[in-house]
Amino acid sequence: MDIRNKIRAQDIEQFYSRALECTSASRAAIQVALVSGFEVRRKPDKSFVTSVDLRVEEQLRALIQQHFPDHGIIGEEYPPTKPQAPFQWIMDPIDGTEDFVHRLPTFGTMLGLYYRGAPVVGVIDHPVLDLRVSAAFGLGTYKNNERIRLVDIEPAAMDGSERVMIPARANFIKHADEGRLFDAVTRAHPNHRIYRTCFTHACAAIGAADATIDYGNPVWDFAATRILIEEAGGKFVTVREMDVPKLGKVYGSVFGKPRLVEKLVALFNAPA
Amino acid sequence: MDIRNKIRAQDIEQFYSRALECTSASRAAIQVALVSGFEVRRKPDKSFVTSVDLRVEEQLRALIQQHFPDHGIIGEEYPPTKPQAPFQWIMDPIDGTEDFVHRLPTFGTMLGLYYRGAPVVGVIDHPVLDLRVSAAFGLGTYKNNERIRLVDIEPAAMDGSERVMIPARANFIKHADEGRLFDAVTRAHPNHRIYRTCFTHACAAIGAADATIDYGNPVWDFAATRILIEEAGGKFVTVREMDVPKLGKVYGSVFGKPRLVEKLVALFNAPA
Repeated sequence: MDIRNKIRAQDIEQFYSRALECTSASRAAIQVALVSGFEVRRKPDKSFVTSVDLRVEEQLRALIQQHFPDHGIIGEEYPPTKPQAPFQWIMDPIDGTEDFVHRLPTFGTMLGLYYRGAPVVGVIDHPVLDLRVSAAFGLGTYKNNERIRLVDIEPAAMDGSERVMIPARANFIKHADEGRLFDAVTRAHPNHRIYRTCFTHACAAIGAADATIDYGNPVWDFAATRILIEEAGGKFVTVREMDVPKLGKVYGSVFGKPRLVEKLVALFNAPA
Repeated sequence: MDIRNKIRAQDIEQFYSRALECTSASRAAIQVALVSGFEVRRKPDKSFVTSVDLRVEEQLRALIQQHFPDHGIIGEEYPPTKPQAPFQWIMDPIDGTEDFVHRLPTFGTMLGLYYRGAPVVGVIDHPVLDLRVSAAFGLGTYKNNERIRLVDIEPAAMDGSERVMIPARANFIKHADEGRLFDAVTRAHPNHRIYRTCFTHACAAIGAADATIDYGNPVWDFAATRILIEEAGGKFVTVREMDVPKLGKVYGSVFGKPRLVEKLVALFNAPA
């Protein structure tokens, strides 16, 4: 039995509508910051963080705690709260901060709700692109407010022109020596694009990518995605789970149109 | 002597302002098409072409012929006109048609004017992103209407975190067997992004990429770019020129912040 069937339908609807409210609020805050300016610094790992990442995560945490005081929260910028709670909200307030800093529009907010490890709600919101992809268990996937469904790729269309979105080679070498996987994917699927995580995940959900690979990222980079893909009729497969000292678990996943996902998963499972 | 000094300053200003008018017109036509819809088909090489590519090129050709009846025109979708004329307008009405078809916002219009082989005016316009990068010889480079200048990258910042935008591996193998160059670049500069040509070129001009590589593309994919980079204080180097049967010449170029461009050019010049 799917454990999510234990959640009452009206609760799922409420979680979903609160999640949409949360990303409407974060979108507004980000838009204000783009006009009024913000502070930028580098984290110890040299990735960027801005005053907006922090402010948006604080804002989302406050909204969630106000509505759901018993739920746990995991986010990129602050320590977890209520890690034992059955319901966990997982967020990346600004994914693609490097692009945000350069004022490229391909950054976004990622927010997911899990119940005992199973995805219930997911939202990826791109404030500048006015693109919000959202889903809830049993309710379907939506691009802005339009219901969307993935159509599987035809076998004949996997001829090298299939659109695969991938992370940079850096993602395959920063926690493990797996550059060979980047090489294998880029050789087998030469029509690839490398955008930011949130944008490639949204593209997989709306079918603008035939499939997306992400790799070497923490849980908040994947938390919104699984439900977006599955409720749209796509396939989501976790191909790696690694423990990284001080950072915690990082994951590798492949998702999108089922036939292509299966083909890509085989690349990851091939012997080194 | 720079041959462009032979052109009268008021002529350069007029060419520049007409080029901006042209891309305002093409932007409006593209925005209308995104609302009203358009036809899509595949070319023999399987790349996409839409009714909008054709309509925008017709529109740009008509505007240029009206203002400058003696000038030549080279475009992606129609045969050249007046190939012997000293002034040549070179255009890609929609670069990134594949993204346009999927309604991703990273496509754009590229328009350049050359005088006896030297770049005089360049415009890259992204209708959905509201991002126009433009330049004219001696007049500087502009992001929308703001003058911009590239600041060179510090040697210490070329530590693997430098932002390099590149084409897909497909570009290195479709006309020649040069996948090793893709491998060399992605190994040496692991923080890479792969967006569409026009967006990566615009990013190099505004400094949102530290440097951009493009490869295996015809002249209309590069025609706007050189003047955008050089007038912003950047460096533009053509690293390859190949004759491809039926297609004509294709090029490989590296451009952006000078120190990083020099480093990347060395990769292309290294023995195979």
